Amino acid sequence: MPVNLETPAAASLLPVNGVLLGIAEANIKKPDRKDLLVMQLTPSSTVAGVFTQNRFCAAPVIVAREHLATGEGVRALVINTGNANAGTGEQGLAAARTVCAEVATLLECEPEQVLPFSTGVIMEPLPVEKIIAGLPQAVSNLKADNWFDAAHAIMTTDIVAKAVSRQIQIEGKTVTITGIAKGSGMIHPNMATMLGYIATDASVAQPLLQQMVKQASDASFNCITVDGDTSTNDALMLIATGASGVTITAANHAQLQAAVSEVAILLAQAIVRDGEGATKFMAITVEGGRDVAECKQIAYAVARSPLVKTAFFASDPNLGRILAAIGYAGVNDLDVQRLSLYLDDVLVAEHGGRAASYREEDGQRVMQQGDISVRVVLERGAASATVWTCDFSYDYVKINASYRS
Amino acid sequence: MPVNLETPAAASLLPVNGVLLGIAEANIKKPDRKDLLVMQLTPSSTVAGVFTQNRFCAAPVIVAREHLATGEGVRALVINTGNANAGTGEQGLAAARTVCAEVATLLECEPEQVLPFSTGVIMEPLPVEKIIAGLPQAVSNLKADNWFDAAHAIMTTDIVAKAVSRQIQIEGKTVTITGIAKGSGMIHPNMATMLGYIATDASVAQPLLQQMVKQASDASFNCITVDGDTSTNDALMLIATGASGVTITAANHAQLQAAVSEVAILLAQAIVRDGEGATKFMAITVEGGRDVAECKQIAYAVARSPLVKTAFFASDPNLGRILAAIGYAGVNDLDVQRLSLYLDDVLVAEHGGRAASYREEDGQRVMQQGDISVRVVLERGAASATVWTCDFSYDYVKINASYRS
Repeated sequence: MPVNLETPAAASLLPVNGVLLGIAEANIKKPDRKDLLVMQLTPSSTVAGVFTQNRFCAAPVIVAREHLATGEGVRALVINTGNANAGTGEQGLAAARTVCAEVATLLECEPEQVLPFSTGVIMEPLPVEKIIAGLPQAVSNLKADNWFDAAHAIMTTDIVAKAVSRQIQIEGKTVTITGIAKGSGMIHPNMATMLGYIATDASVAQPLLQQMVKQASDASFNCITVDGDTSTNDALMLIATGASGVTITAANHAQLQAAVSEVAILLAQAIVRDGEGATKFMAITVEGGRDVAECKQIAYAVARSPLVKTAFFASDPNLGRILAAIGYAGVNDLDVQRLSLYLDDVLVAEHGGRAASYREEDGQRVMQQGDISVRVVLERGAASATVWTCDFSYDYVKINASYRS
Repeated sequence: MPVNLETPAAASLLPVNGVLLGIAEANIKKPDRKDLLVMQLTPSSTVAGVFTQNRFCAAPVIVAREHLATGEGVRALVINTGNANAGTGEQGLAAARTVCAEVATLLECEPEQVLPFSTGVIMEPLPVEKIIAGLPQAVSNLKADNWFDAAHAIMTTDIVAKAVSRQIQIEGKTVTITGIAKGSGMIHPNMATMLGYIATDASVAQPLLQQMVKQASDASFNCITVDGDTSTNDALMLIATGASGVTITAANHAQLQAAVSEVAILLAQAIVRDGEGATKFMAITVEGGRDVAECKQIAYAVARSPLVKTAFFASDPNLGRILAAIGYAGVNDLDVQRLSLYLDDVLVAEHGGRAASYREEDGQRVMQQGDISVRVVLERGAASATVWTCDFSYDYVKINASYRS
């Protein structure tokens, strides 16, 4: 079950002027489920995105990058679940282009103005006919107040839909930000690690928007891991429709950046809280490092360790496993004598070993919680970094041993 | 259950002249099990070793390195299971030195001539009194024909004892090599990944012996992973007693090197076959790479992926997960169009996607086997590397969620 995470109330999700969302049941993998989403954008919109660094990136990622690079205004996004269209070669590229062309025909724009996204099983042909057959249904129910269903339409093994809205006041006007995301397995960044779509009705020129989505991604989706696997299809898209009449520039973008990053962080954490088989949510913070890179390196070593993750699943304060992971993280001049390890407020280890004050029952108490913070203090600098992850349970194995059936 | 691995026949394990082994039940963690091993070496012996690269290396690793560096002839090794004496700070170092001193008293040598090793739970104090109380029992049953019991005395979560012997003829004389190893979790090299002891009755000067153990380790224990966790305590020791009367030099060491490496590879593979919860044994070969490093990098990305490992557990040819792991391995200029993927003899993927000839039932057939080879052909060079690993099952989680109980 997701850890301290509930389905957002539909009423809490605010429409973003300039964005319409349409959903269909296209039977892509299973019948009777929403599996196709079309987002139509008003012509003034700008769109920016970050994509997976996986060399086997999926056909839709290649096509979406190509279409973004044309500089044509993006008019629509089309997202299917049930099939990733990854590891599908030339045939997959053709399939993604066919879907874009069909959306373009229906919405009366150019194929290059449509960005495709897919999520699901890898290396099986995209059932392009089913998607084309489902598109008219999606287009026929395009509406602004459809984020709740949209969040559901992009789920795969997700248990809970991920969506959040924020409103801020800029220059006396209201700016709305709403985002949705999906993902609960194959989650490890080398960028974005899932599908995420955040829209705002502010007006933001594309180069600045690209900078903003990068910053939001680095603060959120690039700080999570479920299983250490970087997906072939990850993408985080930031859409600015301009419909609020508020124009954002480099000079005044801080407030919007903060709100966009907050939405991205909440969505990224939701992905971890709904990580496949998760029963615990851990924030691994490494501080006192020489630079952020080494802090992240150590935090990820802890967050990825199957031994650490199974110990958290068992609520077993077998905390030597955390020390072992810190030790093999690859920071070769690390002085373990200077290092301290905390579980929430409990000092667990210092001077290379168990802290004299540490009592097993204190560790045990913290391990019972749903949300747990692990803090590693290196005492070799001023940098810090936090990574969010979940534990490793029977259900992770069960879900991933039976995913295709 | 271990994959295609059985307990070696006691009679197949050949004594190595110059090595005596004594075993005790010292109640270190649990009663009524062999948990303490003393190996006594004849004075002419040389010893070389490779140790974990983990920064949180255990107290016995630090002490063993110190004692080796003194250049005093090693006269004994003492190995306990049930407690790793890692993450134990100054107290742990003192404990390891106390154990060495006690062995030295019993065997009438110097403490610096004793090398200590520990395996088991991390960050709990070594029960040094229990070990000292058990040493007289171990010393009292020192004998040459004791490798079978010795292999059992160093087990932790191992199901099957790992031991193998070989004999070769050099210059008309018989040279014997016998090795034992333990390990089934926290197995990922950045060196040796477990405890392994290989002895031969050849005579080898220490610098050459060090070179030989490094080469054997690189070909064996540095090519395996169970869970990606590098232990705090790993050590592979190579002992040469000289009792056979055969002197090995740089000029004639190839034959002994081959036999030692073969023993090391069989022990390393045995560790993977007995990997925690393992039901499948996979050899991941990457060939056609620019250098061995990039081949290993890709092979380890595949071998470590929880998604790949759970798919093998399910006998599910969800082979896109292998492509995804190849893609995120970090070889940034990899051309996926040139790459081919084979499962045993079955061509699965080429030209960036599923091979036209691939049929699901062929993949399914291979996935049912206990031993499976995964072959990735990069077509960008002449280098290759193989990594051995196992699958990821419910039992891995079960074993590691309950290890301390």
